[in-house]
Amino acid sequence: MTDNVIDYLDGAHENIVSWLDAYLRIQSVSTDPRFAPQMEEARHFLLRRLDEIGLTNVQQLDGGGEPAIYGEWLGAPGKPTILIYGHYDVQPAEPLELWRSPPFEPTLHDGRLYARGASDVKGPTTVALEVVAAFLSVTGGCPVNVKVFIEGEEETGSPTLTEIIARFRGLLSADAVLSADGGRASAEVPTVNTGARGCGQLEFRLRTADKDLHSGRYGGSVRNALHEMAKLVASLHDAEGAVAVDGFYDGVVPPSARQRADTAAFPFSADVFFRDVGASASGEPGYTTREQVTLRPSLDINGMWGGYIGHGGKTIIPNEATAKLTVRIVEGQTSEAVLDAIVRHLNRCCPAQVKLDITSRFAGASASTLSADHPLVLAVESVLRKETAREPIHVRLGASVPITAVFKETLGIDTLMFGYNLPDEDVHAPNEFFRIASIREGTRGWARLLDALGGTTPAEFGAGRHTAA
Amino acid sequence: MTDNVIDYLDGAHENIVSWLDAYLRIQSVSTDPRFAPQMEEARHFLLRRLDEIGLTNVQQLDGGGEPAIYGEWLGAPGKPTILIYGHYDVQPAEPLELWRSPPFEPTLHDGRLYARGASDVKGPTTVALEVVAAFLSVTGGCPVNVKVFIEGEEETGSPTLTEIIARFRGLLSADAVLSADGGRASAEVPTVNTGARGCGQLEFRLRTADKDLHSGRYGGSVRNALHEMAKLVASLHDAEGAVAVDGFYDGVVPPSARQRADTAAFPFSADVFFRDVGASASGEPGYTTREQVTLRPSLDINGMWGGYIGHGGKTIIPNEATAKLTVRIVEGQTSEAVLDAIVRHLNRCCPAQVKLDITSRFAGASASTLSADHPLVLAVESVLRKETAREPIHVRLGASVPITAVFKETLGIDTLMFGYNLPDEDVHAPNEFFRIASIREGTRGWARLLDALGGTTPAEFGAGRHTAA
Repeated sequence: MTDNVIDYLDGAHENIVSWLDAYLRIQSVSTDPRFAPQMEEARHFLLRRLDEIGLTNVQQLDGGGEPAIYGEWLGAPGKPTILIYGHYDVQPAEPLELWRSPPFEPTLHDGRLYARGASDVKGPTTVALEVVAAFLSVTGGCPVNVKVFIEGEEETGSPTLTEIIARFRGLLSADAVLSADGGRASAEVPTVNTGARGCGQLEFRLRTADKDLHSGRYGGSVRNALHEMAKLVASLHDAEGAVAVDGFYDGVVPPSARQRADTAAFPFSADVFFRDVGASASGEPGYTTREQVTLRPSLDINGMWGGYIGHGGKTIIPNEATAKLTVRIVEGQTSEAVLDAIVRHLNRCCPAQVKLDITSRFAGASASTLSADHPLVLAVESVLRKETAREPIHVRLGASVPITAVFKETLGIDTLMFGYNLPDEDVHAPNEFFRIASIREGTRGWARLLDALGGTTPAEFGAGRHTAA
Repeated sequence: MTDNVIDYLDGAHENIVSWLDAYLRIQSVSTDPRFAPQMEEARHFLLRRLDEIGLTNVQQLDGGGEPAIYGEWLGAPGKPTILIYGHYDVQPAEPLELWRSPPFEPTLHDGRLYARGASDVKGPTTVALEVVAAFLSVTGGCPVNVKVFIEGEEETGSPTLTEIIARFRGLLSADAVLSADGGRASAEVPTVNTGARGCGQLEFRLRTADKDLHSGRYGGSVRNALHEMAKLVASLHDAEGAVAVDGFYDGVVPPSARQRADTAAFPFSADVFFRDVGASASGEPGYTTREQVTLRPSLDINGMWGGYIGHGGKTIIPNEATAKLTVRIVEGQTSEAVLDAIVRHLNRCCPAQVKLDITSRFAGASASTLSADHPLVLAVESVLRKETAREPIHVRLGASVPITAVFKETLGIDTLMFGYNLPDEDVHAPNEFFRIASIREGTRGWARLLDALGGTTPAEFGAGRHTAA
């Protein structure tokens, strides 16, 4: 039956591309209020499509910001309910002069469809929607219950996502989330994303005097806030690049043999990784570069400033210096505990004569993890094994995925990222593109995955099936 | 004869205060183009006065910016020619709401004349001018040849001073400069300023990658420009606060026994010095605080920045960091050699993978020094000894005095600062004031000093009489 659906999707290929083309022409830039009409246009475009394909309860979910689009098909009693996540907003297209074709006039070249939002994430969202459409059209139903949820604020940090979920908690309850955003880590090998690092932020300020002091009058005798800041920041890492903060690594779950093997199997060249961006290595010894960025926590200063930073010189001894830092954390850590350790370190290393203020602190998401026997993982593995005839590799993201954490915290459910975009598609940059071949691959994959999930029960998604903190 | 002049000045006291009052009402703010008419007004006010008191060759000296005012009396053949320096421009009066009386309506209260420019430097300039006026009026001549030079750009960094001197080199040639700007270091003890620290500036930038990197994708594996900057800046000083740059102290002339004794005799409380500005001590061990800021060189970072410094957070690994630094140097050092040592240090400490650029370098003035047997020093000592019945203390400025360096470099002559302002008179701040008593003290002092210099010959001011580099 799913084979029929896949045949149907193959036949509908031109229509799918044509619908995606129309979707990409809508300039749904959420970060710029001037595009409010186009955001509205994108919502109506989606509402129409969800109606057309036979979803019910189609509506806008308003949380006080850009509403999300919702539609459902709940005709599979006893089967799991899957929330399909995507977003209809896109990044601004600027700088326009670097685009080889107009960002909102989709242009096909060499098997790639160039347009703002093609890869992030209108293309992959279309893939997911069209699979649901095909199931309903060909078989009159889906292998699982489906709730489509397409938000409009992903590119602005999802400011009202939590509010939308709070207001429509019943409507959005589900057993798991399949995200059309993110997922494929490599064009060469099949991958299953089993989690992401968490994060946390801290901003701190040092004060060494009541005001900037004249370097002629005081130079050589007093503390300088920038010297103190430099010493403090320098104390955060050891010479090799490992974090030198007491307690920072407390509780970190060491990479398992499976994780290290999967990481080693992933096609990755540290040389290329560094060379591509002109960077050089600095990190915790004993781990490969890819392990460092996916399986180990990190601490980076994101911004630091103090004193006179304008043109020319100013002969002052600055009295104030500020730094922003973020951490990426892994399984076994909590953002609060890691930030606590850093604050303790700062307090211990900061001389008593220097006033230290934590000016901002934000404990972000914990690391998320899908265990190897999670039904989402088992299902996607079986699909990829069959589709690619290769054993899929488990990968983890070095970055944090806010929506994954939000769904976990608000609805208590896990998210599998199953987007068919690829890492090289210049998202957020000029000449963003989506591979046309990913439409066929993606619709096959999603059809097989919904089919596989149809073989599970809601109970399998219950508590204890996953280890996300 | 000088006693008659002093008697005359005592009798003229009310007139002097009245003239100063009128001078202070002119809003000659050089930093703000809206005050151009008032700058012009101040010039005409001074030209009129120089004419009135009997100077000749009275004129404006135009170097392309705010013209300086000039007038001369050269009726003492065989005697030294003294250039009397002052400036007619003042700092802006803002913030106006903090003034207890309007800044350009001079207000006498408790023996203090409150007005913008009262201390810096219309009051002290008036003192010097009125002494010349009194000599000419009472005796028909001066003990020395006098060239009055009052610039209009001191508060904007004297941008055309060098050009003015270049254009009017012959007119301005002299044996020495007496500056009405700066000089008295203490209200309690008589002081002779025998020099100032020199200075130099450097700006440098570090690059660790081609662009800012995403801290999720790269965090834990790559160099961070801010971490590198912190390590580099932290390496510039040792734990106690001494400069840890190889070669930085090379050639520094150790403080002489006389200098250390004078410094110790100067009324100075390190506790008060720090407490007044909420600062704390950090500096080269083995020296008192006052020695550190006047007799020893220093190095301060004046500004440092990199990465995201706006509101909120941004999860980047910054690829670039910049710092500005200045040095204060002392006798035996040259700015070039000190900056060379710092550049060598930066190059040695900066990892090969990090790109270091010196983005700006300015070798400022060397330290200036009047030797203990310089005729200016001997003359002022004799005057202060007589006027105060105390042995004057030699002091040095921690700051650099640009005009001193300019006169040295362009005209080859030394400057003695003999202004009668005092350090607590809130220059550049609201409620600036000048002590009325300083008019009597100052005119006596200047009259005695011109008299004493009348006992010297131009030959005594020749080469070899001073050690300024």
